[in-house]
Amino acid sequence: MMARPRGPSDRRAAIVRAATRLFAEDGYDGVSLRQIAREAGVDAALVHHYFDGKEELFAASVALPMNPEVLLSGIDEQALAERGRFVARAIVRLWEGPQRHALAAFFRSTISSTSRSRLLAQLVRRRILARVSDGLPGDDAERELRASMAASQVVGFMLARYIVKLEPLASLPADDAERLLAPAIQRHLTGPLPGAS
Amino acid sequence: MMARPRGPSDRRAAIVRAATRLFAEDGYDGVSLRQIAREAGVDAALVHHYFDGKEELFAASVALPMNPEVLLSGIDEQALAERGRFVARAIVRLWEGPQRHALAAFFRSTISSTSRSRLLAQLVRRRILARVSDGLPGDDAERELRASMAASQVVGFMLARYIVKLEPLASLPADDAERLLAPAIQRHLTGPLPGAS
Repeated sequence: MMARPRGPSDRRAAIVRAATRLFAEDGYDGVSLRQIAREAGVDAALVHHYFDGKEELFAASVALPMNPEVLLSGIDEQALAERGRFVARAIVRLWEGPQRHALAAFFRSTISSTSRSRLLAQLVRRRILARVSDGLPGDDAERELRASMAASQVVGFMLARYIVKLEPLASLPADDAERLLAPAIQRHLTGPLPGAS
Repeated sequence: MMARPRGPSDRRAAIVRAATRLFAEDGYDGVSLRQIAREAGVDAALVHHYFDGKEELFAASVALPMNPEVLLSGIDEQALAERGRFVARAIVRLWEGPQRHALAAFFRSTISSTSRSRLLAQLVRRRILARVSDGLPGDDAERELRASMAASQVVGFMLARYIVKLEPLASLPADDAERLLAPAIQRHLTGPLPGAS
Protein backbone atom coordinates (compact mmCIF):
# COMPACT_ATOMS: atom_id res chain seq x y z
CA MET A 1 0.00 0.00 0.00
CA MET A 2 1.29 3.44 -0.90
CA ALA A 3 1.63 6.30 1.54
CA ARG A 4 -1.52 8.39 1.45
CA PRO A 5 -0.97 11.30 -0.96
CA ARG A 6 -1.08 14.77 0.59
CA GLY A 7 -1.02 17.83 -1.70
CA PRO A 8 -3.26 18.25 -4.81
CA SER A 9 -0.47 17.53 -7.32
CA ASP A 10 0.56 14.51 -5.21
CA ARG A 11 -2.98 13.23 -5.37
CA ARG A 12 -3.32 13.74 -9.10
CA ALA A 13 0.01 11.98 -9.67
CA ALA A 14 -1.04 9.13 -7.39
CA ILE A 15 -4.22 8.67 -9.45
CA VAL A 16 -2.24 8.57 -12.70
CA ARG A 17 0.25 6.07 -11.21
CA ALA A 18 -2.56 3.82 -9.99
CA ALA A 19 -4.31 4.05 -13.36
CA THR A 20 -1.10 3.19 -15.22
CA ARG A 21 -0.61 0.11 -13.07
CA LEU A 22 -4.19 -1.14 -13.36
CA PHE A 23 -4.66 -0.39 -17.08
CA ALA A 24 -1.41 -2.23 -17.80
CA GLU A 25 -2.45 -5.26 -15.75
CA ASP A 26 -6.12 -5.57 -16.63
CA GLY A 27 -6.60 -3.59 -19.82
CA TYR A 28 -8.71 -0.54 -20.49
CA ASP A 29 -12.04 -2.34 -20.31
CA GLY A 30 -11.13 -4.34 -17.21
CA VAL A 31 -10.62 -1.34 -14.94
CA SER A 32 -13.15 1.04 -13.38
CA LEU A 33 -12.57 4.55 -12.07
CA ARG A 34 -13.65 3.28 -8.66
CA GLN A 35 -10.90 0.66 -8.66
CA ILE A 36 -8.37 3.28 -9.65
CA ALA A 37 -9.51 5.55 -6.82
CA ARG A 38 -9.20 2.70 -4.32
CA GLU A 39 -5.74 1.75 -5.63
CA ALA A 40 -4.64 5.39 -5.36
CA GLY A 41 -6.05 5.71 -1.83
CA VAL A 42 -8.33 8.63 -2.76
CA ASP A 43 -12.06 9.22 -2.95
CA ALA A 44 -13.74 8.39 -6.29
CA ALA A 45 -15.08 11.96 -6.45
CA LEU A 46 -11.51 13.21 -6.57
CA VAL A 47 -10.80 11.15 -9.68
CA HIS A 48 -13.78 12.84 -11.34
CA HIS A 49 -12.50 16.20 -10.13
CA TYR A 50 -9.19 15.78 -11.97
CA PHE A 51 -10.32 13.76 -15.01
CA ASP A 52 -13.33 14.04 -17.26
CA GLY A 53 -13.66 10.29 -17.57
CA LYS A 54 -11.81 7.02 -18.06
CA GLU A 55 -10.61 7.96 -21.56
CA GLU A 56 -8.97 11.14 -20.29
CA LEU A 57 -7.32 9.34 -17.38
CA PHE A 58 -6.11 6.66 -19.77
CA ALA A 59 -4.59 9.33 -22.04
CA ALA A 60 -2.89 10.90 -19.02
CA SER A 61 -1.43 7.49 -18.10
CA VAL A 62 0.08 7.04 -21.54
CA ALA A 63 1.15 10.71 -21.75
CA LEU A 64 1.46 10.65 -25.53
CA PRO A 65 3.24 13.86 -26.64
CA MET A 66 0.75 14.43 -29.48
CA ASN A 67 -2.95 14.14 -30.10
CA PRO A 68 -3.81 11.13 -32.31
CA GLU A 69 -7.13 12.75 -33.29
CA VAL A 70 -5.27 15.79 -34.64
CA LEU A 71 -2.62 13.62 -36.30
CA LEU A 72 -5.25 11.60 -38.18
CA SER A 73 -7.65 14.46 -38.76
CA GLY A 74 -9.12 14.11 -42.25
CA ILE A 75 -8.14 10.47 -42.80
CA ASP A 76 -11.79 9.46 -43.28
CA GLU A 77 -12.02 11.71 -46.34
CA GLN A 78 -9.09 9.99 -48.06
CA ALA A 79 -9.65 7.37 -50.74
CA LEU A 80 -8.59 3.95 -49.44
CA ALA A 81 -5.72 3.88 -51.94
CA GLU A 82 -4.35 7.16 -50.48
CA ARG A 83 -4.35 6.09 -46.86
CA GLY A 84 -0.74 4.87 -46.83
CA ARG A 85 0.42 8.20 -48.20
CA PHE A 86 -1.70 10.09 -45.69
CA VAL A 87 -0.25 8.19 -42.73
CA ALA A 88 3.33 8.41 -44.05
CA ARG A 89 3.01 12.17 -44.45
CA ALA A 90 1.49 12.62 -40.99
CA ILE A 91 4.25 10.55 -39.37
CA VAL A 92 7.15 12.20 -41.19
CA ARG A 93 5.79 15.71 -40.56
CA LEU A 94 5.25 14.93 -36.91
CA TRP A 95 8.82 13.72 -36.46
CA GLU A 96 10.43 16.47 -38.51
CA GLY A 97 8.64 19.07 -36.39
CA PRO A 98 9.38 20.64 -33.01
CA GLN A 99 7.97 17.68 -31.04
CA ARG A 100 10.77 15.45 -32.31
CA HIS A 101 12.72 15.37 -29.06
CA ALA A 102 9.64 14.94 -26.87
CA LEU A 103 8.52 12.07 -29.08
CA ALA A 104 11.90 10.36 -28.94
CA ALA A 105 12.02 10.72 -25.16
CA PHE A 106 8.48 9.37 -24.90
CA PHE A 107 9.27 6.33 -27.05
CA ARG A 108 12.49 5.53 -25.23
CA SER A 109 10.90 5.66 -21.82
CA THR A 110 7.69 3.89 -22.86
CA ILE A 111 9.45 1.00 -24.57
CA SER A 112 11.77 0.55 -21.59
CA SER A 113 8.80 -0.16 -19.31
CA THR A 114 6.60 -3.25 -19.68
CA SER A 115 3.53 -1.65 -18.15
CA ARG A 116 3.80 1.58 -20.16
CA SER A 117 4.40 -0.47 -23.35
CA ARG A 118 1.15 -2.34 -22.76
CA LEU A 119 -0.71 0.91 -22.22
CA LEU A 120 0.72 2.31 -25.44
CA ALA A 121 -0.33 -0.80 -27.38
CA GLN A 122 -3.88 -0.41 -26.08
CA LEU A 123 -3.98 3.27 -26.89
CA VAL A 124 -2.61 2.74 -30.39
CA ARG A 125 -5.16 0.04 -31.05
CA ARG A 126 -8.13 1.95 -29.66
CA ARG A 127 -7.42 5.46 -30.83
CA ILE A 128 -5.25 5.10 -33.93
CA LEU A 129 -5.71 1.71 -35.59
CA ALA A 130 -9.48 1.76 -35.23
CA ARG A 131 -9.51 4.85 -37.47
CA VAL A 132 -6.81 3.70 -39.87
CA SER A 133 -8.50 0.33 -40.44
CA ASP A 134 -11.99 1.73 -40.98
CA GLY A 135 -13.25 0.65 -44.42
CA LEU A 136 -10.33 -1.66 -45.25
CA PRO A 137 -10.93 -4.94 -47.12
CA GLY A 138 -11.97 -8.08 -45.25
CA ASP A 139 -13.79 -8.82 -42.00
CA ASP A 140 -13.03 -7.22 -38.64
CA ALA A 141 -10.23 -9.69 -37.85
CA GLU A 142 -8.53 -9.08 -41.19
CA ARG A 143 -8.85 -5.31 -40.91
CA GLU A 144 -7.33 -5.33 -37.44
CA LEU A 145 -4.49 -7.55 -38.61
CA ARG A 146 -3.80 -5.26 -41.57
CA ALA A 147 -3.77 -2.23 -39.29
CA SER A 148 -1.41 -3.88 -36.79
CA MET A 149 1.03 -4.86 -39.57
CA ALA A 150 0.89 -1.30 -40.93
CA ALA A 151 1.57 -0.07 -37.40
CA SER A 152 4.58 -2.38 -37.15
CA GLN A 153 6.03 -0.77 -40.29
CA VAL A 154 5.34 2.74 -38.99
CA VAL A 155 6.81 2.04 -35.57
CA GLY A 156 9.90 0.42 -37.11
CA PHE A 157 10.35 3.38 -39.44
CA MET A 158 10.16 5.85 -36.55
CA LEU A 159 12.56 3.77 -34.50
CA ALA A 160 15.08 3.22 -37.32
CA ARG A 161 15.04 6.76 -38.72
CA TYR A 162 14.47 8.95 -35.69
CA ILE A 163 15.51 7.04 -32.59
CA VAL A 164 18.18 4.46 -33.40
CA LYS A 165 19.23 6.52 -36.46
CA LEU A 166 19.97 3.64 -38.78
CA GLU A 167 21.75 4.86 -41.90
CA PRO A 168 21.13 5.55 -44.74
CA LEU A 169 17.47 5.85 -43.73
CA ALA A 170 18.22 8.36 -40.96
CA SER A 171 19.85 10.89 -43.31
CA LEU A 172 17.40 10.58 -46.19
CA PRO A 173 15.57 13.85 -47.06
CA ALA A 174 12.10 13.90 -45.50
CA ASP A 175 10.27 13.79 -48.85
CA ASP A 176 12.20 10.72 -49.97
CA ALA A 177 11.59 9.02 -46.63
CA GLU A 178 7.88 9.73 -46.92
CA ARG A 179 7.78 8.31 -50.45
CA LEU A 180 9.51 5.12 -49.28
CA LEU A 181 7.22 4.65 -46.30
CA ALA A 182 3.88 5.33 -48.02
CA PRO A 183 3.64 2.23 -50.27
CA ALA A 184 4.94 -0.03 -47.49
CA ILE A 185 2.03 1.08 -45.30
CA GLN A 186 -0.42 0.92 -48.19
CA ARG A 187 0.43 -2.70 -49.02
CA HIS A 188 -0.32 -3.77 -45.48
CA LEU A 189 -3.63 -1.94 -45.61
CA THR A 190 -4.95 -2.98 -49.02
CA GLY A 191 -2.48 -5.42 -50.60
CA PRO A 192 -2.75 -9.20 -50.59
CA LEU A 193 -2.78 -10.64 -47.06
CA PRO A 194 -0.70 -13.82 -47.05
CA GLY A 195 -1.16 -16.59 -44.51
CA ALA A 196 -3.90 -14.99 -42.44
CA SER A 197 -6.27 -17.56 -40.99
CA MET B 1 38.40 11.13 -15.40
CA MET B 2 37.18 7.89 -13.86
CA ALA B 3 38.69 6.28 -10.77
CA ARG B 4 41.45 3.89 -11.78
CA PRO B 5 39.94 0.38 -12.02
CA ARG B 6 41.40 -2.19 -9.61
CA GLY B 7 40.38 -5.87 -9.97
CA PRO B 8 40.45 -7.80 -13.30
CA SER B 9 36.65 -7.76 -13.78
CA ASP B 10 36.63 -4.05 -12.87
CA ARG B 11 39.22 -3.43 -15.53
CA ARG B 12 37.41 -5.42 -18.20
CA ALA B 13 34.16 -3.60 -17.38
CA ALA B 14 35.94 -0.23 -17.50
CA ILE B 15 37.28 -1.06 -20.96
CA VAL B 16 33.79 -2.00 -22.20
CA ARG B 17 32.30 1.18 -20.71
CA ALA B 18 34.97 3.35 -22.34
CA ALA B 19 34.46 1.55 -25.67
CA THR B 20 30.69 2.02 -25.50
CA ARG B 21 31.12 5.73 -24.90
CA LEU B 22 33.69 6.27 -27.66
CA PHE B 23 32.02 4.06 -30.29
CA ALA B 24 28.73 5.87 -29.67
CA GLU B 25 30.35 9.30 -29.99
CA ASP B 26 32.78 8.73 -32.85
CA GLY B 27 31.57 5.59 -34.62
CA TYR B 28 33.32 2.29 -35.11
CA ASP B 29 35.88 3.56 -37.60
CA GLY B 30 36.63 6.73 -35.65
CA VAL B 31 37.94 4.98 -32.56
CA SER B 32 41.20 3.11 -31.95
CA LEU B 33 41.94 0.51 -29.30
CA ARG B 34 44.61 2.87 -27.98
CA GLN B 35 42.04 5.64 -27.44
CA ILE B 36 39.78 3.19 -25.63
CA ALA B 37 42.64 2.10 -23.37
CA ARG B 38 43.43 5.72 -22.55
CA GLU B 39 39.76 6.52 -21.86
CA ALA B 40 39.52 3.46 -19.60
CA GLY B 41 42.72 4.38 -17.77
CA VAL B 42 44.43 1.08 -18.57
CA ASP B 43 47.43 -0.03 -20.61
CA ALA B 44 46.74 -0.82 -24.30
CA ALA B 45 48.21 -4.30 -23.76
CA LEU B 46 45.43 -5.01 -21.29
CA VAL B 47 42.79 -4.29 -23.94
CA HIS B 48 44.46 -6.88 -26.17
CA HIS B 49 44.59 -9.27 -23.24
CA TYR B 50 40.81 -9.17 -22.82
CA PHE B 51 39.68 -8.70 -26.43
CA ASP B 52 40.86 -10.27 -29.66
CA GLY B 53 40.43 -7.03 -31.57
CA LYS B 54 38.23 -4.01 -32.15
CA GLU B 55 35.36 -6.09 -33.59
CA GLU B 56 35.19 -8.26 -30.47
CA LEU B 57 35.30 -5.25 -28.17
CA PHE B 58 32.58 -3.61 -30.24
CA ALA B 59 30.41 -6.74 -29.93
CA ALA B 60 30.99 -6.73 -26.17
CA SER B 61 29.87 -3.07 -26.04
CA VAL B 62 26.61 -3.84 -27.81
CA ALA B 63 26.12 -7.13 -25.89
CA LEU B 64 23.68 -8.52 -28.45
CA PRO B 65 22.03 -11.62 -26.94
CA MET B 66 22.51 -13.60 -30.18
CA ASN B 67 25.10 -14.07 -32.86
CA PRO B 68 24.13 -12.37 -36.14
CA GLU B 69 26.46 -14.67 -38.09
CA VAL B 70 24.61 -17.72 -36.77
CA LEU B 71 21.23 -16.07 -37.33
CA LEU B 72 22.02 -15.34 -40.98
CA SER B 73 24.01 -18.49 -41.62
CA GLY B 74 23.15 -19.77 -45.10
CA ILE B 75 21.58 -16.55 -46.39
CA ASP B 76 24.12 -16.31 -49.22
CA GLU B 77 22.85 -19.62 -50.65
CA GLN B 78 19.27 -18.34 -50.90
CA ALA B 79 17.84 -17.09 -54.19
CA LEU B 80 17.27 -13.35 -54.02
CA ALA B 81 13.51 -13.89 -54.19
CA GLU B 82 13.65 -16.09 -51.07
CA ARG B 83 15.58 -13.68 -48.88
CA GLY B 84 12.52 -12.08 -47.31
CA ARG B 85 11.23 -15.49 -46.28
CA PHE B 86 14.65 -16.49 -44.95
CA VAL B 87 14.91 -13.38 -42.76
CA ALA B 88 11.29 -13.64 -41.58
CA ARG B 89 11.81 -17.26 -40.53
CA ALA B 90 15.07 -16.48 -38.75
CA ILE B 91 13.51 -13.58 -36.84
CA VAL B 92 10.32 -15.41 -35.82
CA ARG B 93 12.24 -18.53 -34.74
CA LEU B 94 14.67 -16.44 -32.75
CA TRP B 95 11.88 -14.69 -30.87
CA GLU B 96 9.76 -17.78 -30.33
CA GLY B 97 12.77 -19.54 -28.78
CA PRO B 98 14.30 -19.51 -25.30
CA GLN B 99 16.19 -16.23 -25.88
CA ARG B 100 12.90 -14.34 -26.10
CA HIS B 101 13.17 -12.71 -22.69
CA ALA B 102 16.85 -11.86 -23.03
CA LEU B 103 16.12 -10.28 -26.41
CA ALA B 104 13.24 -8.23 -25.05
CA ALA B 105 15.35 -7.03 -22.14
CA PHE B 106 18.18 -6.17 -24.52
CA PHE B 107 15.91 -4.16 -26.81
CA ARG B 108 14.23 -2.31 -24.00
CA SER B 109 17.49 -1.26 -22.40
CA THR B 110 19.27 -0.51 -25.68
CA ILE B 111 16.48 1.68 -27.06
CA SER B 112 16.24 3.58 -23.78
CA SER B 113 19.85 4.75 -24.13
CA THR B 114 21.00 7.10 -26.87
CA SER B 115 24.58 5.86 -26.90
CA ARG B 116 23.64 2.18 -26.90
CA SER B 117 21.07 2.83 -29.65
CA ARG B 118 23.79 4.32 -31.83
CA LEU B 119 26.04 1.35 -31.20
CA LEU B 120 23.23 -1.01 -32.14
CA ALA B 121 22.56 0.88 -35.37
CA GLN B 122 26.23 0.58 -36.32
CA LEU B 123 26.34 -3.10 -35.48
CA VAL B 124 23.15 -3.83 -37.42
CA ARG B 125 24.49 -1.98 -40.42
CA ARG B 126 27.95 -3.58 -40.36
CA ARG B 127 27.15 -7.13 -39.40
CA ILE B 128 23.58 -7.74 -40.52
CA LEU B 129 22.56 -5.39 -43.33
CA ALA B 130 25.83 -5.80 -45.20
CA ARG B 131 24.98 -9.50 -45.59
CA VAL B 132 21.27 -9.05 -46.22
CA SER B 133 21.87 -6.45 -48.95
CA ASP B 134 24.57 -8.40 -50.77
CA GLY B 135 23.48 -8.96 -54.38
CA LEU B 136 20.34 -6.79 -54.24
CA PRO B 137 19.31 -4.65 -57.24
CA GLY B 138 20.82 -1.19 -57.73
CA ASP B 139 24.03 0.53 -56.76
CA ASP B 140 25.55 0.53 -53.27
CA ALA B 141 23.40 3.45 -52.10
CA GLU B 142 20.19 1.80 -53.29
CA ARG B 143 21.13 -1.57 -51.74
CA GLU B 144 21.86 0.06 -48.40
CA LEU B 145 18.60 1.97 -48.51
CA ARG B 146 16.66 -1.20 -49.32
CA ALA B 147 18.34 -3.03 -46.46
CA SER B 148 17.64 -0.22 -43.98
CA MET B 149 13.95 -0.12 -44.96
CA ALA B 150 13.76 -3.91 -44.60
CA ALA B 151 15.39 -3.52 -41.19
CA SER B 152 12.78 -0.92 -40.22
CA GLN B 153 10.03 -3.45 -40.99
CA VAL B 154 11.80 -6.21 -39.05
CA VAL B 155 12.47 -4.01 -36.04
CA GLY B 156 8.88 -2.74 -36.02
CA PHE B 157 7.57 -6.29 -36.27
CA MET B 158 9.69 -7.40 -33.30
CA LEU B 159 8.65 -4.39 -31.31
CA ALA B 160 4.93 -4.67 -32.10
CA ARG B 161 4.61 -8.45 -31.72
CA TYR B 162 7.09 -9.31 -28.99
CA ILE B 163 7.78 -6.19 -26.95
CA VAL B 164 4.81 -3.81 -27.03
CA LYS B 165 2.49 -6.77 -27.80
CA LEU B 166 0.19 -5.00 -30.19
CA GLU B 167 -2.88 -7.10 -30.93
CA PRO B 168 -3.91 -8.95 -33.02
CA LEU B 169 -0.32 -9.30 -34.29
CA ALA B 170 0.99 -10.37 -30.88
CA SER B 171 -1.35 -13.39 -30.61
CA LEU B 172 -1.04 -14.57 -34.20
CA PRO B 173 0.39 -18.12 -34.55
CA ALA B 174 4.09 -18.03 -35.40
CA ASP B 175 3.64 -19.50 -38.88
CA ASP B 176 1.04 -16.91 -39.82
CA ALA B 177 3.21 -14.11 -38.46
CA GLU B 178 6.14 -15.37 -40.50
CA ARG B 179 4.01 -15.51 -43.67
CA LEU B 180 2.86 -11.91 -43.10
CA LEU B 181 6.36 -10.61 -42.47
CA ALA B 182 8.18 -12.35 -45.32
CA PRO B 183 6.66 -10.47 -48.31
CA ALA B 184 6.91 -7.14 -46.48
CA ILE B 185 10.67 -7.65 -46.14
CA GLN B 186 10.97 -9.01 -49.67
CA ARG B 187 9.31 -5.94 -51.22
CA HIS B 188 11.81 -3.65 -49.53
CA LEU B 189 14.68 -5.81 -50.79
CA THR B 190 13.67 -6.40 -54.41
CA GLY B 191 10.44 -4.49 -55.12
CA PRO B 192 10.14 -1.08 -56.76
CA LEU B 193 12.01 1.61 -54.84
CA PRO B 194 9.89 4.78 -54.90
CA GLY B 195 11.31 8.23 -54.46
CA ALA B 196 14.94 7.29 -53.86
CA SER B 197 17.36 9.84 -55.22
